[in-house]
Amino acid sequence: MRVKKVSQGYSVSTKVAVRYAETDQMGVVYYANYFVWFEVGRNAYFQRIGYSYKALEEQGLLFPIIEASCRYLVPAQYEDQLIITTQLLAVSASRLSFLYSIFRDETLIATGQTTQAFVNRSTQRPVSLKKHYPKLWECLQKLLAGNSNGVVNNAREDFSG
Amino acid sequence: MRVKKVSQGYSVSTKVAVRYAETDQMGVVYYANYFVWFEVGRNAYFQRIGYSYKALEEQGLLFPIIEASCRYLVPAQYEDQLIITTQLLAVSASRLSFLYSIFRDETLIATGQTTQAFVNRSTQRPVSLKKHYPKLWECLQKLLAGNSNGVVNNAREDFSG
Amino acid sequence: MRVKKVSQGYSVSTKVAVRYAETDQMGVVYYANYFVWFEVGRNAYFQRIGYSYKALEEQGLLFPIIEASCRYLVPAQYEDQLIITTQLLAVSASRLSFLYSIFRDETLIATGQTTQAFVNRSTQRPVSLKKHYPKLWECLQKLLAGNSNGVVNNAREDFSG
Amino acid sequence: MRVKKVSQGYSVSTKVAVRYAETDQMGVVYYANYFVWFEVGRNAYFQRIGYSYKALEEQGLLFPIIEASCRYLVPAQYEDQLIITTQLLAVSASRLSFLYSIFRDETLIATGQTTQAFVNRSTQRPVSLKKHYPKLWECLQKLLAGNSNGVVNNAREDFSG
Repeated sequence: MRVKKVSQGYSVSTKVAVRYAETDQMGVVYYANYFVWFEVGRNAYFQRIGYSYKALEEQGLLFPIIEASCRYLVPAQYEDQLIITTQLLAVSASRLSFLYSIFRDETLIATGQTTQAFVNRSTQRPVSLKKHYPKLWECLQKLLAGNSNGVVNNAREDFSG
Repeated sequence: MRVKKVSQGYSVSTKVAVRYAETDQMGVVYYANYFVWFEVGRNAYFQRIGYSYKALEEQGLLFPIIEASCRYLVPAQYEDQLIITTQLLAVSASRLSFLYSIFRDETLIATGQTTQAFVNRSTQRPVSLKKHYPKLWECLQKLLAGNSNGVVNNAREDFSG
Repeated sequence: MRVKKVSQGYSVSTKVAVRYAETDQMGVVYYANYFVWFEVGRNAYFQRIGYSYKALEEQGLLFPIIEASCRYLVPAQYEDQLIITTQLLAVSASRLSFLYSIFRDETLIATGQTTQAFVNRSTQRPVSLKKHYPKLWECLQKLLAGNSNGVVNNAREDFSG
Repeated sequence: MRVKKVSQGYSVSTKVAVRYAETDQMGVVYYANYFVWFEVGRNAYFQRIGYSYKALEEQGLLFPIIEASCRYLVPAQYEDQLIITTQLLAVSASRLSFLYSIFRDETLIATGQTTQAFVNRSTQRPVSLKKHYPKLWECLQKLLAGNSNGVVNNAREDFSG
C-alpha cells in the first residue's frame, strides 16, 4: 500500500492481483468486479487514515452504498497487477463519496465513484457523522481540505494519532 | 418473464430470487451484485426480442461494458423475489445503453444504466452494428422508436420473426 | 420448481440459468459457482417442505457449512438451463447433509455434497435440532425414511401442513 | 508470499485479506469463496516455481477443475489477514491435485483439495503433461519427491532456472 498524489490532493493506493474467478468468458474481468476493487480501495483508505471499517461497524456505524458508477477504459486481465487509487470526493453530515482510479502500470484502465450514507446499525436510521462521530468527521474534513490546497502529504502522521 | 410498460415504451421484465451468496454482513445484498442482475435483465431483453447474447458472441460480436451505474433506493434482502425491468435507452452505430429498474412488489428498490460498445471478437476492434448487423440494428431502432411513441406492445411478434 | 425421483427417495429440483457473471476465461462456469447453485438447491428444498431458510435464521437457527465438495463431469456454459436436484442424505441432532445433482437436459454435469451444522444465532454455539426444533427434526426424519423406502412422493402434502 | 514447511514437503504460502464482498449475512465468509482463495493459492504456487498459469493457458494448456472439496473449521471474517498454504498432493500424466490449508495467525481455519485435468485449449481434449510439457512435468515430479523426503527447501532456485 502506498500513497501518491493523483491530480491534487490526498489519495491512498492499494494493489490487487486479478483472480481467475474475476474473469468472464470474454477473457477479461467481469464488469461488476470492479466495484469489489473499489471496496478494497476504500477499506485501504480508512485503514491508512487510522480507521478500520470493521471496527466502525462494530461501533454501530454502517456505510451502505447509495450510488455507484464505473467507466471502463481498458479491460483488466487475469494476473494483472493493478493499483487502485482512492480519493475522498465529498463529505456531508449524512454521506461521503469516494473517487477511484484503477491503473495497470501507468495506464488508467477505469475510474469510478461511490456514495455511501451513514446509518446506525441498531436503528437502521440515518445518523449524522458530524454529531455522532466528530473525530472521524474532523479527520475527513481535513483530508478534503487537503484535496483542494495540496497541503496533506502524509495523512497517517497528521490524522491517525 | 413478463412484459410491461415502464413509463412509456417497450421493456422486458424478468425475475430473480435473491441468493444467500449475494448478501453481505450488513444483512442485505452487496452492491456489486445489482450489476449481475442488470446482466440477467439485458440477457432476458435480447432473448425476448429473438436474439441470444450467446449466439451473437459466437457470431463474433462482443458487447463489453464501457459504463455502468446504479442508484440504491431500498436494500434488497435474502429470499426477496425481485423483478428486473430492462429498457433500451439509446443505440448508435458503436454502442447501446440500457436502463434498469428493480422492483420488490410495487416498490422500486434500485435503478441503473449500462452502456456497451460493439466489438469484433477476432480483431478486438470496434464494429459498426448498423453496417455489420443490420437486422439487429433495425430491430433495436424500432424498439427505440417504440419507446418514444408507445406503439410497441409486443416486440416478439414484431421483431423476432 | 418440480419434484422428481433421483435414484430412490425424495428430492427437490429447481432451475438456474447460467449467468455471464458465472463464466470465466476458460469459457465455462468457474468452479466455485457450483456451490452457489447448491445453495439455491437447498433453499428450494426447504421451501418445498414448507420451511424458509430465511425464517429459520430469523428464529435464531443458523446452518453454517462445515464441509462441501463437488465433482465436475461436464462443464456448464453460459445460457445453459440447468436443473439442480437436491436430496437429503443424512440428519443427526447436530448436522445435516445434502446431495446435489446438476443436470443439463438429461446429462448429469456435476454432483456434490454439503454438510451443515446447527448453530444458535445468539450464542453462536451448536444447538440440537432434535431438542430445539422438534417439528423440523421430525419432518427431516420422515424425508430420510422416504429416501430408503421410496414411500414419500409428495413431501409438501405430507409434511408442510 | 512466503514459503514454509507444512508437515513435511514443499509448500507455497500467500496472503489474502478478507473482502466485504466475500462475507454473507451470517457475518462470516460465504463458503464458496474459499474455493476462490484456493485458486489464489495455486496461482501463487505456479508463480513460485517459475510458471505463470496465464502463460500456460496462452501456450494452450488448460487446467479445468474436476474435483474440489473444503472443510470449514473456524469461520473467516471480514478484514481477516489469512495465509493460504498450497502443497502439491499428486501428479499423473493426466491430472494434478493440490492440498490447501488456510490459517488466521496460528489457527488453521480451513483445509481443502482440488484436482485438475490437463486439457488442450484448441482440441478441448485431455493432454498428457508428461509428453507435451516435459519440463513442467519434471519440475512437479521433483516437488512431489521433495514432499516425501523433505529435501526441497527453495523450489525457485532448484526448478525455475
